[in-house]
Amino acid sequence: MISTSAVDAYVEKHTRRFVDELKELCSFPSISNHGHAAIQPARDWLADRLARFTDRVETLEAGGMPALYAEVKGAGRRKLLLYEHYDVQPVDPLDLWQSPPFEPAERDGRIVARGVADDKADVMARIHALETLKNLGEAPVTLRFLVEGEEEIGSRSFAKIAHDHADKLKADGCLWESGTSFDDAGRPTLQFGCRGLAYVQLRVKRLDFDQHSGFASIYPSAAMYLIGALASLRDQDMNIKIDGFYDRVVKPTETDRRMMATIDPETEKRRKLVGFDKLVRDPKPEQVIEQMLFLPTCNIAGVTTGYQGPGSKTVLPAEASAKLDFRLIPNQDPDDVVELLRRHLDRHGFEKVEIVRGEGEKPARSDPSSAIARTVIDCVRDMHGEPVLWPFMPATGPMHPVVSDLGIPTVLPVGVGRPDNRIHAPNENIRAADYINTVRLNCRIWERFGAA
Amino acid sequence: MISTSAVDAYVEKHTRRFVDELKELCSFPSISNHGHAAIQPARDWLADRLARFTDRVETLEAGGMPALYAEVKGAGRRKLLLYEHYDVQPVDPLDLWQSPPFEPAERDGRIVARGVADDKADVMARIHALETLKNLGEAPVTLRFLVEGEEEIGSRSFAKIAHDHADKLKADGCLWESGTSFDDAGRPTLQFGCRGLAYVQLRVKRLDFDQHSGFASIYPSAAMYLIGALASLRDQDMNIKIDGFYDRVVKPTETDRRMMATIDPETEKRRKLVGFDKLVRDPKPEQVIEQMLFLPTCNIAGVTTGYQGPGSKTVLPAEASAKLDFRLIPNQDPDDVVELLRRHLDRHGFEKVEIVRGEGEKPARSDPSSAIARTVIDCVRDMHGEPVLWPFMPATGPMHPVVSDLGIPTVLPVGVGRPDNRIHAPNENIRAADYINTVRLNCRIWERFGAA
Repeated sequence: MISTSAVDAYVEKHTRRFVDELKELCSFPSISNHGHAAIQPARDWLADRLARFTDRVETLEAGGMPALYAEVKGAGRRKLLLYEHYDVQPVDPLDLWQSPPFEPAERDGRIVARGVADDKADVMARIHALETLKNLGEAPVTLRFLVEGEEEIGSRSFAKIAHDHADKLKADGCLWESGTSFDDAGRPTLQFGCRGLAYVQLRVKRLDFDQHSGFASIYPSAAMYLIGALASLRDQDMNIKIDGFYDRVVKPTETDRRMMATIDPETEKRRKLVGFDKLVRDPKPEQVIEQMLFLPTCNIAGVTTGYQGPGSKTVLPAEASAKLDFRLIPNQDPDDVVELLRRHLDRHGFEKVEIVRGEGEKPARSDPSSAIARTVIDCVRDMHGEPVLWPFMPATGPMHPVVSDLGIPTVLPVGVGRPDNRIHAPNENIRAADYINTVRLNCRIWERFGAA
Repeated sequence: MISTSAVDAYVEKHTRRFVDELKELCSFPSISNHGHAAIQPARDWLADRLARFTDRVETLEAGGMPALYAEVKGAGRRKLLLYEHYDVQPVDPLDLWQSPPFEPAERDGRIVARGVADDKADVMARIHALETLKNLGEAPVTLRFLVEGEEEIGSRSFAKIAHDHADKLKADGCLWESGTSFDDAGRPTLQFGCRGLAYVQLRVKRLDFDQHSGFASIYPSAAMYLIGALASLRDQDMNIKIDGFYDRVVKPTETDRRMMATIDPETEKRRKLVGFDKLVRDPKPEQVIEQMLFLPTCNIAGVTTGYQGPGSKTVLPAEASAKLDFRLIPNQDPDDVVELLRRHLDRHGFEKVEIVRGEGEKPARSDPSSAIARTVIDCVRDMHGEPVLWPFMPATGPMHPVVSDLGIPTVLPVGVGRPDNRIHAPNENIRAADYINTVRLNCRIWERFGAA
């Protein structure tokens, strides 16, 4: 077993090069939204890096953006799946960037570049951890890198990739991309799953073209029809009125409640940052996190109808549309939710509302007492202090195929993520020191997981 | 009294020049939306034309776009007010015009130009009628031209102009701009008033900036709040739920009902053109016109919130807004309606909805048996056959100050308007023959009205 001090010494010696190589990866404009050709150079560069440690490097495809796969044999009997993604968000608004998004800069101890936090630091820190251990001895577990290419555009083919290549991916544990790793107070946080998502557009057309609003007393209004449909879905307290919607929602377990009790809801900090007057349902402080995680949502992400410009236009709109996203709680299923929504609309007299399906992801939960979870918790405690444990994160990722279909215990570990990373926004950044710590933490987790 | 045959001979002889002069007026891009400088050249040109017949030409101002005023003394004791406007709508979308909007073209017996139908044909036909009568003898009534400059942007200062210059405008009758003059079957139509309008924007802000939609279970939704407010205002059958909204609405009189019984609702033609499945309230054919005119409306002219682009974005919108227009029936008042709306929102828990006031116009009705009305009806019958009489038009104009405040009996007479004129749209056009008939009809009406 390679000692922690040997790892730390190696990492310290190579800090400058590690940061430079991370910046090199961040110089590729791998925006999946821009298509295959945009992201291939980053993938090729990564394939070349991984090929230094194994001859088992390949791409896995299932109709979308190819994922990069590499297996590195390790000393122990255990296998560990490492999920990351090499694609990044678009950069606009470009004029708000202080330096070009794909010319990585260093300012005040931070590395600034599109994708550095989401998710290239995870990708590169794991490659640098592999290099460290290989140079000091050998990999303690068999590592299975899966670097996805379409996470930022909805991971549309990820479930198929996972199913088609189940043999390659199966492992005794999975380290997911690390997400937000420290809360506002600087405490390390771990999560063991994510919420699901059903995204739909509702469309109504009642006339062939917009009319003079003088006719509103006799011609039907697409806007009013859609608003009636939307108003029927929930009340102002986010109680969702769709029959059967809550049937498959699980309650938090005692373990969940114990975990959530240690999470600081930071209500006053949020109020100042976000500007709400009071939270939905006006919960007591100890209920905030439970409501955030365990209440599924029916969110109106957008509504479009009629005249949108300045001043007035007296028009009776022919069409109206809305975008809805539902955050789903275990064990809800996006297909079920869309079916229940269709039935609700039909029963309430809104059969003319067309549902156009968008993304769908199932929620995913993993056991916080699994071997990989316990290993991560112990290593994080050693390095950063007692971690705050979240049953799952409030957001959504393509975790279900790994956690539920392949049955791999999964953790969102600690990486570089902090609330001020500005992921998806201009001037995305990380602290360089956090990056080096992420390399060190990976080495510790793998060593400890491999020793069992 | 000048004979009809003398008028017709003069008009026939000068047809080519009349059309050319109308085209000359239409070559001025007098878009009031573009500001004072944009519309002055058209006004100056018209002032110069009118100055050929009178030395009493001036502009009337009350803070908005100036109106042009001219008085021409006539032989008889009666005075006639002529309301028109010299401003026009914007031209976009420009690429749908077959010829440049301010380079008037002639195609298939039609004159094509922005503003030719709305309302430059009325302006010029009345000047040409004046020329005709002056050349054949003299004006039979004192004519008071009022050519407004901001009708297309809501006539914001028109009420003040009318009040400030009541002495100049007072008359025994008023010919309004002619509007739609023939129905689909080609029957001449007359109207004796208009509906009122209250235009408002509703705005809601619940957060300082848009949030990740994962927070929708705890942060309030501006979109849902606004939708709740909108849904509370009316049902799908246009029954308005605002307390007191209907209190001042008048019922049709027996005279109104007799008039409406002669109007063809053209339901099947409308269905094909407009594409509705059925009308609001599914009225019997004999109820369609009464519902169109005598039901006030609460129309949603636009809604804007959240992400409006293609594909999906999971966002919890911080703000939401809607544009509403209310068409008002005698004796509703826009100030009252806005006050009732405020009270409704407060009572129903929507006190966070801000109301931003836009245009407001009171409804206006004039007596269809007034002297000017009877004169117009008789002259139209002679020239075009039995006219269809509408109690008032379903749309709105700044008629209230003239009809109600100054007490001038008013008619929307027959002019060039037909359903295929494409007013406010690309390729606005009129038939040249309709233009010449409008000159002739004006001469007849003035002669007959002046003879009394």
